[in-house]
Amino acid sequence: MPNIVKLKRIIKEIFIKRGLNSNHSKECAEAIINAELVGAHSHGLSRLKMYCKRIDKKLINPKPKIKIKKISNSVSLIDADNSIGFISANLGIKQAIKNAKKSGIGFVGIKNSSHYGLSAFYAEKAVKKNLIAMIFTNAPPAVAPHGASKSLFGTNPICFAAPFGNKAPFILDTSISKINRGKIRLAEKNNQKIPVDVALDMYGKPTTDPKKALNGVQLPIAEFRGSGLAWMVDILSGVITGAHHAGRVKDPFDDFTGPQNVGHLFFVFKPNLFVKNYKKRIKENIRIIKKLPKIKNVKEIFYPGENRFNIYKKNLKKNIQIKKNINKDLEELLA
Amino acid sequence: MPNIVKLKRIIKEIFIKRGLNSNHSKECAEAIINAELVGAHSHGLSRLKMYCKRIDKKLINPKPKIKIKKISNSVSLIDADNSIGFISANLGIKQAIKNAKKSGIGFVGIKNSSHYGLSAFYAEKAVKKNLIAMIFTNAPPAVAPHGASKSLFGTNPICFAAPFGNKAPFILDTSISKINRGKIRLAEKNNQKIPVDVALDMYGKPTTDPKKALNGVQLPIAEFRGSGLAWMVDILSGVITGAHHAGRVKDPFDDFTGPQNVGHLFFVFKPNLFVKNYKKRIKENIRIIKKLPKIKNVKEIFYPGENRFNIYKKNLKKNIQIKKNINKDLEELLA
Repeated sequence: MPNIVKLKRIIKEIFIKRGLNSNHSKECAEAIINAELVGAHSHGLSRLKMYCKRIDKKLINPKPKIKIKKISNSVSLIDADNSIGFISANLGIKQAIKNAKKSGIGFVGIKNSSHYGLSAFYAEKAVKKNLIAMIFTNAPPAVAPHGASKSLFGTNPICFAAPFGNKAPFILDTSISKINRGKIRLAEKNNQKIPVDVALDMYGKPTTDPKKALNGVQLPIAEFRGSGLAWMVDILSGVITGAHHAGRVKDPFDDFTGPQNVGHLFFVFKPNLFVKNYKKRIKENIRIIKKLPKIKNVKEIFYPGENRFNIYKKNLKKNIQIKKNINKDLEELLA
Repeated sequence: MPNIVKLKRIIKEIFIKRGLNSNHSKECAEAIINAELVGAHSHGLSRLKMYCKRIDKKLINPKPKIKIKKISNSVSLIDADNSIGFISANLGIKQAIKNAKKSGIGFVGIKNSSHYGLSAFYAEKAVKKNLIAMIFTNAPPAVAPHGASKSLFGTNPICFAAPFGNKAPFILDTSISKINRGKIRLAEKNNQKIPVDVALDMYGKPTTDPKKALNGVQLPIAEFRGSGLAWMVDILSGVITGAHHAGRVKDPFDDFTGPQNVGHLFFVFKPNLFVKNYKKRIKENIRIIKKLPKIKNVKEIFYPGENRFNIYKKNLKKNIQIKKNINKDLEELLA
């Protein structure tokens, strides 16, 4: 039997030890294990120590008094009271789903939150309720705005998910940086190089050294276009929600001068607002695109999320590989 | 005195000649001249002949009976009855603004429409009413999905606009292809080459020949990320609105077998749903980012739309340059 259940129990225990209640600890464990199962190791166990350190330093509130304010039948604002991001994001998507079921649209802003892992994890919850979801979050400085020599934008992912009845949901979850910051951290942790042309060092020179990249600047996709999309995400998740923005979201690994105050925006709506045969239409859309002629050496055209689901399914059947340094983290955090 | 007023009158006359009423003709002229003024010549006068040809062939309806269906206080569906895109998009943004003023959110789907020019043109109308806007539209096949050797997605722009009280509005309007299809058409019309690495010919080979690129495949920004964003736009503007999707939107220049049936989605909302000091926050956001240290040879960091506005302002004072072939078009269309 794979070690998934045991690992979840361990993570849950680690959070309970730090004052989170049983439910919250379970939610954290589920999000972290999900990241491992979909292959996003940079958003999984490798962050556990950081989360705990921030709780220990009272920068993440283990017993948050989260306030949900109703603005209209569609719109709600959540003040997460510096909770760990998993908890506020879970509440956020739940509220957005509720509003959408009632009014057609759920539009939920979240402030005073922290890193919540993968947007896709929450988008999937909306998809399972037969809703379309768009999710935006800002993040600590990592990417330089087009023309700037200094990082300011986070990797600010854009997430879009649409239900279509398949087991593998359609979920686009793409950061606007050429490389995920977590992947650079993981490369650093494992003493690996990063690809060329994804980051510059602090002097503006291209680098494949993850340490230098972390001190330097990540490059946005598609120059001014990616930079503009990152800016859009900062406005949507930071400026309008009341969270930090314009580079003020704190780096969870390096900056212990205060809570992160990450902002999220959850936009969820019924897919059949305009058409009666949405399910038929989306199935047709995906079928046609998957059946296109392929370029050389490509066996299958994957829709966003399909590959991630395949990895997940495969990983469900085996042990989660735990690197030495992570194992050490787990032992220390349980002690 | 610049030729702008005269040109508008000429365009208006051209559309009136083809059965559009005076107001609709004026709206078309304004959108086309605006494209010229912001420097988007590929979306301006160079398309006039195409629009007229489609009206003459009864593929654009000069006297559309456009239906606006109220779904909720926030949500409306517009059946554009194959109107020229300018008219349906103007109605769409007007309805979205109305819904947002009433309920906080305006969410308007449009089907049976056609090419409407620049998304930024409509986004600006929302910004002027102090609203945030997101606009999506699909378009005829131009970009190959990641892994496919055939075009299917349009250049499917993502447009985001946020009011902040400046004369030059914050408007991101970015296609997800490395190059705008209109720019390739313009290069073809003017016998110019296109940049390397933005398109492949029909055999999958890189090309700088605009003719070959038009018969081949445009490349999406950022590989699977850009491909995923294009797919998102096709779902948002095509699948859920009831318009064509999955590559069925007809090419307005080449395909006269039926109306285009482009789909658009207008999402507009009040910027102060969650915070009371939005204007202060957005101003601060933009000020901080513009003040970042710059990379070598960059004098100023521009926010999306700033450069376009500067071009617009400069162009307002001078004659719109009309190339020989365009002049010929105008003469023929007036005849």
